[in-house]
Amino acid sequence: MHPLTQRRRDSVAALGEQQLIRAIQTWLGPASPRSPFGIGDDCAVLPASRGRQLLTVDPVIFGRHFDATVPPRAVGAKLLKRNLSDLAAMGGRPTSAVLALTLDARVSRRWLEQFYRGLAACAMRYRVRIVGGDVAQADGMVAASLTLLGEAAGPRFVARHGARNGDWIYVTGVLGGSLRAGHHYRFLPRLAEGAWLARHRAVRAMMDVSDGLAKDLHALTPKQSTPALTPDAIPRRTGCDLRAALTDGEDYELVFALSSRADRAAFGRAWRRAFPRVRLSCIGRFVPVGKAPAEAIPLANYSGYEHLR
Amino acid sequence: MHPLTQRRRDSVAALGEQQLIRAIQTWLGPASPRSPFGIGDDCAVLPASRGRQLLTVDPVIFGRHFDATVPPRAVGAKLLKRNLSDLAAMGGRPTSAVLALTLDARVSRRWLEQFYRGLAACAMRYRVRIVGGDVAQADGMVAASLTLLGEAAGPRFVARHGARNGDWIYVTGVLGGSLRAGHHYRFLPRLAEGAWLARHRAVRAMMDVSDGLAKDLHALTPKQSTPALTPDAIPRRTGCDLRAALTDGEDYELVFALSSRADRAAFGRAWRRAFPRVRLSCIGRFVPVGKAPAEAIPLANYSGYEHLR
Repeated sequence: MHPLTQRRRDSVAALGEQQLIRAIQTWLGPASPRSPFGIGDDCAVLPASRGRQLLTVDPVIFGRHFDATVPPRAVGAKLLKRNLSDLAAMGGRPTSAVLALTLDARVSRRWLEQFYRGLAACAMRYRVRIVGGDVAQADGMVAASLTLLGEAAGPRFVARHGARNGDWIYVTGVLGGSLRAGHHYRFLPRLAEGAWLARHRAVRAMMDVSDGLAKDLHALTPKQSTPALTPDAIPRRTGCDLRAALTDGEDYELVFALSSRADRAAFGRAWRRAFPRVRLSCIGRFVPVGKAPAEAIPLANYSGYEHLR
Repeated sequence: MHPLTQRRRDSVAALGEQQLIRAIQTWLGPASPRSPFGIGDDCAVLPASRGRQLLTVDPVIFGRHFDATVPPRAVGAKLLKRNLSDLAAMGGRPTSAVLALTLDARVSRRWLEQFYRGLAACAMRYRVRIVGGDVAQADGMVAASLTLLGEAAGPRFVARHGARNGDWIYVTGVLGGSLRAGHHYRFLPRLAEGAWLARHRAVRAMMDVSDGLAKDLHALTPKQSTPALTPDAIPRRTGCDLRAALTDGEDYELVFALSSRADRAAFGRAWRRAFPRVRLSCIGRFVPVGKAPAEAIPLANYSGYEHLR
């Protein structure tokens, strides 16, 4: 469905601001608590946190993160899931979210209702409270930015930094071809997996793969090290070549470093017991710069998604 | 300064994403802690809250909240101050913020640097940590959305609901002509005033005036009541008529309801001791519907800023 309508009476502008806010409350339903704990006051009031908190923000923009072929319900869900994936990558679980919309006056009410209903269903599934937001107008824009607050799911969270030379590199699922396969909006954020991994001290560093493994892996690589990846070990989506798997982006899988001293066989068995249907691949390890074997992937020849170009 | 440049080498696109993120960290300086407590990981890690928290989100969009006549430093500061004003309206104080930017590839580096330096200076002044963000590209857009997290400054926060019939209505500062006077970006958020007011139990309900008093006051009005405002009591900016004061918007003043049982003279004296240079006006009171005196302002004849039309 295209987000814009040519008929003014079907547009959000025809609804007017006050009616739109009431409609949004209806569409969100139980995903949004009542004011002042939800929409309707200057700020939302949140309960005290149970410990350290996690905070992230990610948008969806028409023409960039979705187009008219993606169902609006899926767009709303994707917005939340992108942020959940960031939380998963640290071993977090979500608590609350706020939403900033930037809409052309011609956005159709039907499109927006489906967007919110998709967001609400996803919020209920992952127990996220949508506590507030803002709607602003800008010509030609259909964009939504969601800020997600969370906490560590267990006693520990995992950052991008912390990997050491010699650590093994693992990735969940398969990579590449996300746009073509519709994975970019159908994916399920790896929250349970991220929380499980964070409980294992041998998992020293973790992040999600959103811009392509070749690009994202830099952030996980310790100083004076380089990732030595085995070409055949990279898990590819059906029909994808190595380049697609390394650079396509929007995979929303987890990549992490496992301590070189860990018992990899026991770790693999524990994973298969916990997640029998989620593929886990050891794709290589961090080695000193200049010591990568000849058969390792020359990552410098691959680059992932650039946000500004 | 216009945010867009015609010379590609002066644009953010020429900088590339990785360099841009490093530049942003430099521009933010001490306003942004190091990763994982600031920019650079999947999520920012925040300390545990001291109690209930406040959360709000507001954008600035080129062509709507600022134009080329507003210095970019002031745009960055305005973005944060708009959100601080929402926090002030509940008696809150800020803790952390994240920022989502949507930029045309032609945005000039100089403009963006000044924007961030203005934001950072404002963040230092009000002790806000800028802990993370996101940069996305969209043609023709120069927009930033900031999500602000805070907490109650004292033992209590004040919501919009809570006023009762008979309560007095007060407003800080002067109203109207904000755009013409440059007040819309020069204003100082009423954080100290909001915190002071929240410590007074007689202040039953509060909000900030952002879309014009005539429109905003609805949210403060108790059921079966109507605001009876005295025309001469409305504090107007020099050169503004009553309509401008009631409908212009972007005042960023506080409007609140004081209990009808409060000692207004003592309250006024305490205010003047605390804020000798901030005007405080009692502009009327809430009366039963149909019981407003003939000389009260017919608010239905005035309407404030509509966000979608």
